[in-house]
Amino acid sequence: MSRVALVIQYLGTHFHGWQRQPNLRTVQEEIEKTIAPVGGHSVTVCAAGRTDAGVHAAAQVAHFDYFGYIPGERWASILNARLPEDILIRGSAEVPLTWHARFSASWRRYRYTLYTDKEPNLFVKPFSWHYYYVPLDESLITAALKPLLGRHHLAAFRRANSSRSHSWVEVQAVECYRRGPLLQIEIQANGFLYGMVRLLVGTLVEVGRRRRSPASFTQLWIEERREEVKYSAPAKGLCLLRVGYPEFPFPRKIWFDTQPTFL
Amino acid sequence: MSRVALVIQYLGTHFHGWQRQPNLRTVQEEIEKTIAPVGGHSVTVCAAGRTDAGVHAAAQVAHFDYFGYIPGERWASILNARLPEDILIRGSAEVPLTWHARFSASWRRYRYTLYTDKEPNLFVKPFSWHYYYVPLDESLITAALKPLLGRHHLAAFRRANSSRSHSWVEVQAVECYRRGPLLQIEIQANGFLYGMVRLLVGTLVEVGRRRRSPASFTQLWIEERREEVKYSAPAKGLCLLRVGYPEFPFPRKIWFDTQPTFL
Repeated sequence: MSRVALVIQYLGTHFHGWQRQPNLRTVQEEIEKTIAPVGGHSVTVCAAGRTDAGVHAAAQVAHFDYFGYIPGERWASILNARLPEDILIRGSAEVPLTWHARFSASWRRYRYTLYTDKEPNLFVKPFSWHYYYVPLDESLITAALKPLLGRHHLAAFRRANSSRSHSWVEVQAVECYRRGPLLQIEIQANGFLYGMVRLLVGTLVEVGRRRRSPASFTQLWIEERREEVKYSAPAKGLCLLRVGYPEFPFPRKIWFDTQPTFL
Repeated sequence: MSRVALVIQYLGTHFHGWQRQPNLRTVQEEIEKTIAPVGGHSVTVCAAGRTDAGVHAAAQVAHFDYFGYIPGERWASILNARLPEDILIRGSAEVPLTWHARFSASWRRYRYTLYTDKEPNLFVKPFSWHYYYVPLDESLITAALKPLLGRHHLAAFRRANSSRSHSWVEVQAVECYRRGPLLQIEIQANGFLYGMVRLLVGTLVEVGRRRRSPASFTQLWIEERREEVKYSAPAKGLCLLRVGYPEFPFPRKIWFDTQPTFL
């Protein structure tokens, strides 16, 4: 048996998320059913982070176990020749059986994109939340983000059916910046609670539009006032940017390529 | 009778270009058949530049003549409610009957996008030419572009079935720059010959990869050696960025919004 790791890019628009579900088009199922006939047996593909319906991935990481002789690095091109247009394998490699896409990961980084021009724009529509009703002050959002750095209990930003046993999150990096009409928020953490980024962004937007001060935002999660976290930002603005591993099994090039600087 | 001007954005991917053609999906036909039932009569929509199949537009400009009472600025939202997902009207305004989307225009600006990372990328695929075989030197491309500035006879970069009566073009601005993995070339001119930008880019790439010197590129068009212009860059990398008018009939805001800085 060998273990194969994949770096996967996908447009979330036409998927019901990563995880396999009966009668729904999911990324996991598309990849599994593409591997099976080539590999000669059915497989389960395990991802670093299970993205929701509509969420995109610049570089999801996943692995599967395989009984056969196809070399690890060959899988990328084999699968790309067979996968639908909205999934792309950016790289593949054989990894030790002790390496696990989800449990070996030391961090995930997500980016949320808001599009702030009044006029809609076809080129960014599938990848952003069109938010133009009120101007957003990114310095206030940054001020609200900073106290999140470090290890905190973030149950306030957790949706009901989370599979995790606890709500401790170590936030490693936060950023908020403008690029032309785009306002982007990046958060890197050891792990994320179910719905966390979208609930965070939904509440940060209240800060940006001066409905809530950065200090009150911080009070909200310190005091775990979950009932005040009312808004979840739309899925299509969210993108899983990167997954970090102490030992990244892919060539460095793949790693750096995954940053979609243009979006 | 009144004349209505439109600023139009479209994704060229699923269109056989701007111009109406029997049994093919075109931007012109989609817009004309959306206007007719609302306006109460059939119309002909005349564009500033007729883009080829697969070419995108950030801000095409067009006009149509209308016999009725709907105010010019109302048309944008009326049409957006009825048009397919890949066309967006960014603004509309009533213009004098002497104003003509094509003949009143003093310049057009096109941008060509090359994507130079080896790994393909789903997010840019529909808007770029994936060119990674050989590294491209943008300073050589810039050196080749500069002599194009001014009024020149550019028959070397003209495809056969051009409708224009002559090949004189006044090139007003040229630019070549990198943005992360993207290499972009912008050209502004009073008008363009049929196929001109794609033939230019196809040949400039030869310069960028050091197969042809900037000086020989210039000789090529000065001596009108059309037979040496062999490569036309793929349509999907091309985008009509803006159209300039001495009197722009739209609010300034629309004008500035049309620059897709993120792509």
